[in-house]
Amino acid sequence: MKIEIYDTTLRDGAQGAGVSFSPEDKLNVIRALDRLGISYIEAGMVADEAGKEFFRSLGGLKLENAKLSVFTPTVHPGVRAEDSEILRDSAAAPVPVAAVFGKSSLYHVKEVLRTTPAENIRMIKDSVRFLRDAGKEVIFDAEHFFDGYSDSPSYALEVLAAAHNAGASTIVLCDTNGGMLPDVVGMAAERVCREFPSVGIHAHNDLGMAVSCSVSAVLAGAAHVQGTVSGIGERCGNANLNTLIPLLQLKLGFDCVKDNIKRITATAKYVSEIANLTFDESEPFVGAYAFTHKAGAHIDGIKKDPRSFEHVDPASVGNLRNTVISELSGRAAVTDKISALSPLGGLEKDDPRVAEVVKVLREREKLGYVYEQAEGSLSLLVDGIAGERVSHFDLLAFKVIAEDAKDTPGGDELMKSSAMIKIAVGGSEEIAAAEGNGPVNAMDRALRRALTRFYPEVGGMKLTDYRVRVIDSGATASSVRVLIESTDGVTVWRTVGVSTDIINASWQALRDSVEYMLTHVTKSAPAKDREN
Amino acid sequence: MKIEIYDTTLRDGAQGAGVSFSPEDKLNVIRALDRLGISYIEAGMVADEAGKEFFRSLGGLKLENAKLSVFTPTVHPGVRAEDSEILRDSAAAPVPVAAVFGKSSLYHVKEVLRTTPAENIRMIKDSVRFLRDAGKEVIFDAEHFFDGYSDSPSYALEVLAAAHNAGASTIVLCDTNGGMLPDVVGMAAERVCREFPSVGIHAHNDLGMAVSCSVSAVLAGAAHVQGTVSGIGERCGNANLNTLIPLLQLKLGFDCVKDNIKRITATAKYVSEIANLTFDESEPFVGAYAFTHKAGAHIDGIKKDPRSFEHVDPASVGNLRNTVISELSGRAAVTDKISALSPLGGLEKDDPRVAEVVKVLREREKLGYVYEQAEGSLSLLVDGIAGERVSHFDLLAFKVIAEDAKDTPGGDELMKSSAMIKIAVGGSEEIAAAEGNGPVNAMDRALRRALTRFYPEVGGMKLTDYRVRVIDSGATASSVRVLIESTDGVTVWRTVGVSTDIINASWQALRDSVEYMLTHVTKSAPAKDREN
Repeated sequence: MKIEIYDTTLRDGAQGAGVSFSPEDKLNVIRALDRLGISYIEAGMVADEAGKEFFRSLGGLKLENAKLSVFTPTVHPGVRAEDSEILRDSAAAPVPVAAVFGKSSLYHVKEVLRTTPAENIRMIKDSVRFLRDAGKEVIFDAEHFFDGYSDSPSYALEVLAAAHNAGASTIVLCDTNGGMLPDVVGMAAERVCREFPSVGIHAHNDLGMAVSCSVSAVLAGAAHVQGTVSGIGERCGNANLNTLIPLLQLKLGFDCVKDNIKRITATAKYVSEIANLTFDESEPFVGAYAFTHKAGAHIDGIKKDPRSFEHVDPASVGNLRNTVISELSGRAAVTDKISALSPLGGLEKDDPRVAEVVKVLREREKLGYVYEQAEGSLSLLVDGIAGERVSHFDLLAFKVIAEDAKDTPGGDELMKSSAMIKIAVGGSEEIAAAEGNGPVNAMDRALRRALTRFYPEVGGMKLTDYRVRVIDSGATASSVRVLIESTDGVTVWRTVGVSTDIINASWQALRDSVEYMLTHVTKSAPAKDREN
Repeated sequence: MKIEIYDTTLRDGAQGAGVSFSPEDKLNVIRALDRLGISYIEAGMVADEAGKEFFRSLGGLKLENAKLSVFTPTVHPGVRAEDSEILRDSAAAPVPVAAVFGKSSLYHVKEVLRTTPAENIRMIKDSVRFLRDAGKEVIFDAEHFFDGYSDSPSYALEVLAAAHNAGASTIVLCDTNGGMLPDVVGMAAERVCREFPSVGIHAHNDLGMAVSCSVSAVLAGAAHVQGTVSGIGERCGNANLNTLIPLLQLKLGFDCVKDNIKRITATAKYVSEIANLTFDESEPFVGAYAFTHKAGAHIDGIKKDPRSFEHVDPASVGNLRNTVISELSGRAAVTDKISALSPLGGLEKDDPRVAEVVKVLREREKLGYVYEQAEGSLSLLVDGIAGERVSHFDLLAFKVIAEDAKDTPGGDELMKSSAMIKIAVGGSEEIAAAEGNGPVNAMDRALRRALTRFYPEVGGMKLTDYRVRVIDSGATASSVRVLIESTDGVTVWRTVGVSTDIINASWQALRDSVEYMLTHVTKSAPAKDREN
């Protein structure tokens, strides 16, 4: 049986504190979710000029699996749909679906909307009919449905009937405040499913049970599930689709995204990166820790039979089993990991270099390096072991200075940063200096200045992200891990550095970033061919 | 009705990837959980010398609410309890409770334990009886109970009966692999509750439903719930007690920790800090975002009636309502926040300085400062606005140098860091330099060297933690936030700095750390009284 997955990462997800998407981010999220096989993707609202412009940009977008949706409120009390600007703009948006949200709770109608129950129903009918007449497939989100159903079931059901009769093809039951228990959701959903042909669920996580409430609704007959990637969203977030999709498909036998489910781990991490969120590696199914075994008894069990401490096969969701200890029998799994992550890929598992990569990776991971989000550094590491690493420059001298800048106005003590870098390319040397907005910015500028004479292509590269994490590698001194994201405007790559010294860690990531670009992006000639 | 909360943060929580606790951390966690009113605290195992030593150190510990527990496996096949070192050590541990885990799944008995069903039962009976005879209250953790109950319910129940008859006072049903659905857990728990007087639940989060499974078990009659702070633990973690306690107590009317529930937000954040974890602010009930409203319609609703978009009152769990917009009507709430966080506390809400603190805090929070975990910096900020800020030194000059260290052996380019700092105290100046393990370490050493002549007490202070987070304050350049934790061996305090420049942000936090110590910890005379 098919369950329609309706993703609202770009709308309700963007209501999460600290979450925001640029128009380009949104397009990247849409493409990734489409490739995953999501049925509906809510692209946002047309409430302002930026929203209108973004929706205009969706006009020519070709998608394989998903239908795009525009989210809109109903008309205000006393307003006809024809006179509502947001409804007219939503109707005109070049997407096939409109999700319109309205009140299904008498309390909200009276106290928040401050209108009559009859006018609320008129508003919903008028809005749904207007969007339907404009050719949209209309989904009705019944806001606060479960609260409303508890207070006055007859009114809540009357609201659903109004939306349905006006042409809404799916009725979505929303636990807007996230305070409902799964059993309550299941019972109400069962009642609604008896009367309406296509019912959906939209759950919030304020009790830590959004996934559970969604499953209850599905088991009661709902065939449309709304949620977000990593469960981001207003307050405690929405139902986590990274969990729900594998749970519904692998544990309960529904079809959500067919064989694309193997892409869900990669998609989850990609969207999290775009949203600039810290990915929670303990997330069910898709987190790096989801199949990482630490307790000795668990590792023993896994060696005898993975089923002993795993409820599902990690490969089924494109994830990998990990244990804290190293064991060569795991070589096949690690080969898959390298092949999946490295742009080189394609090493056979019997290739002796695979064992060497495994060994080096494990040593580096113990030091705190992570390569899941630093495929640039991983690629260089694999190049090195495969005997294909070419060096584009040597570092001869390096100095970064951060000092007080008393002459600059401002409240706190102000600092200025500068960097001096001397490199050799082939037989030639170059020294360059730069000031910067912080030491990393200064060293990035100085390095690129020094390289430009030899490799003008580095002028087209820039850092787009810089992340620092203090990590506990079990040693006494804590290390920092630096992740850098770079782009040449077309390709994006990420590199990593680890050290007890943040400048050193930043340098490693920066050096890898430039080397990766020259080796794999611009495919520039190595240093020895550059002598001049 | 009372529900016993059994915390396993220090045992199953410590099985989470990246989690580890020092003996001092463990003592701090135990004290915090005891103050919260947790019934049982699992302190770990006595499997090695470190474990034995830690348990010896618990001998004299006075607790108000909690009983401490030692976690132990049963004997191995073919071994008598009297001959098991770990059981003898567990029996000798100076704690009143022992939790012994054994297999309740035939599959695990045969394939993992590789013994007979009868011998497994003998092992459990013998282990429980031995610990009971040693005077312990014995809790039996039935590992893989739900898998076992599905495969062979009669054997699973026989195991429980064996443990119960041998003297276990509570039988805990464990979903060790975390793959169970709440309905399955509820049905099995109901069956067990019909036969045994005291039943518990231990759920894992591999389906994102550990909380939901625990609630199902409680509604089926279980009165003992195991979990961890923030749900940390093996793989995807355990049931999150930060969610479960308020859910059981406030939404379902059970008693878990009585009025102490107001402490749960502070306790959750404190334990997360000790575990050096990134606290997830979207956690139900206790996260800063749990009652943060972002969507315009939600903020409108909250203004009319908080109930419209909140399922519970944030004050009931010691949390606060936030909206993204500023409004002076919120002054009372912000006063509470200041009073709760600042060691000064005690400002009346009509005090004109409160409005000023609110204004400054909002400005600083927009820049990316967070004061929840930096009470040292908050205290100095409040001092300043209250007109009570005293300065202990002025910075005259500052220089940090990071440069290559070619002479040092090693694979990657090596760096060395040094710092020079010149300060004035009263009419005297002092300049000092130091090398360090990274630039922050160098500047910390140089600053304390320069200060020691005037304030010998800074010699007793040290940095115990240093954290960096890149934050997106909505501006074009991303800033970094640095949090520093310091101690003089007795008191611990935390300070914060924010800048686009990591050295500058680190300096702010470091300067605050020293100023906080001199002002509030050692209460040293200010700079002008130090002229010499």
